[in-house]
Amino acid sequence: MSIAEQLTRRVMIGGAAAAIVAGAKSALAGRLDPLASTHDQQVEVMKPKQIGIVLFDDFETLDVFGPVQMWGRLADHGLTFVSADGRPVQSSHGVRITPDHSFASAPPLDVLMVPGGAGTRRLVDDAALLAFVRRQDEGSSWTTSVCTGAAILARAGVLDGRAATTNKLAFEWVRSQSDAVIWRSRARWVVDGKYVTSSGVSAGTDMALALVERLYDRTAARAAAAVAEYHWNDDPESDPFAVRPLKGG
Amino acid sequence: MSIAEQLTRRVMIGGAAAAIVAGAKSALAGRLDPLASTHDQQVEVMKPKQIGIVLFDDFETLDVFGPVQMWGRLADHGLTFVSADGRPVQSSHGVRITPDHSFASAPPLDVLMVPGGAGTRRLVDDAALLAFVRRQDEGSSWTTSVCTGAAILARAGVLDGRAATTNKLAFEWVRSQSDAVIWRSRARWVVDGKYVTSSGVSAGTDMALALVERLYDRTAARAAAAVAEYHWNDDPESDPFAVRPLKGG
Repeated sequence: MSIAEQLTRRVMIGGAAAAIVAGAKSALAGRLDPLASTHDQQVEVMKPKQIGIVLFDDFETLDVFGPVQMWGRLADHGLTFVSADGRPVQSSHGVRITPDHSFASAPPLDVLMVPGGAGTRRLVDDAALLAFVRRQDEGSSWTTSVCTGAAILARAGVLDGRAATTNKLAFEWVRSQSDAVIWRSRARWVVDGKYVTSSGVSAGTDMALALVERLYDRTAARAAAAVAEYHWNDDPESDPFAVRPLKGG
Repeated sequence: MSIAEQLTRRVMIGGAAAAIVAGAKSALAGRLDPLASTHDQQVEVMKPKQIGIVLFDDFETLDVFGPVQMWGRLADHGLTFVSADGRPVQSSHGVRITPDHSFASAPPLDVLMVPGGAGTRRLVDDAALLAFVRRQDEGSSWTTSVCTGAAILARAGVLDGRAATTNKLAFEWVRSQSDAVIWRSRARWVVDGKYVTSSGVSAGTDMALALVERLYDRTAARAAAAVAEYHWNDDPESDPFAVRPLKGG
């Protein structure tokens, strides 16, 4: 049995793990082959559902690319990157990304994801972004955020009456954006209805896998983690980064 | 005491953690503020040392951006992205990145990092890339890889006689690239002299933190992880993804 087959047997238990597939052309053995090219623009466009990730200057790098890694090989969900005007943006660490769409040209999104980062500080007052979030949220199956992206969702009003979490280092600032949200100070991520919000940066990767579980099943989520040799922190309640008083602090 | 100050006290024990700083302009309180913009092209260029990351079509997304997250706030190391001709490349998941340099224009790199991904399958025969790796390796303080990036280092010959590891799903293919490398089938990452190679995808994030420890100290590495709310898998020997015969497999 080849190594790929061994790993396949180990993680691909259950038929729904077929969700973790590069594209329609992949054979079983290729599904977990890290050398297989998994992106094919043609296939992405043809996929029946779209996961849209909002990009802006000074987004936090891993907020976006942890989820991209975990969502990037789903059988029927393609990835779409959206910026306000469709022009390139730069992450907090200087990564220059070219989006696929502007707010105007973006297709209806099945999953909307708003990352965090320094850029959110000014964007909580950005009418165009808030309108885009409201419009996409009307038709989305899932509306999600990583880190301080929750501040954008909160200011757009889509989290009103919902439980949510955010980056623990920026917790007070995010909480101050809306009194209508039930903010959770201790959670790796929070699911309330179709709203899934995660704590800071790398918590987004764990949230992304939790969403794979909701979209497909737990086996699919475990397979997505295993392909990336990722230790999934799969307990949303476990949050060592939660804000709490220090002894003698 | 503010939340940021509490977290700062918790993780910033020891003066060398000052390494985790956005840039020269950062005040203490801003060091762990996820809302602070940490990238300033002027400051990056002025930083005395450069971490260069090689990009190519079909690089594996998280191979690059996990390390970018962990290396992106070092006090005196700037990040530089390099592609063969300096033109944009696309990751395996369709992320379109604009590099800073071509192989010809890249400055001498203190740290060289080669990621993995589907693109490495053809690049092990790419004379221009192998020559770039050899040239940069001559002057580097650290030469590193994530995932199947080790195949590139191996084919360039810079790992001859060195211990190294790589993605466990692609282990046999990478091993077949060079008999002169001492391949380790069970390791999250391997350090041999100035050569640091990691296992697949997310193992690169853990390797990146290990390098922060070598460049600065353990406190700095822990601080970089904490800012990203990242659970550092800090034991290079712990490798649940290692290739091994399955019971009855």
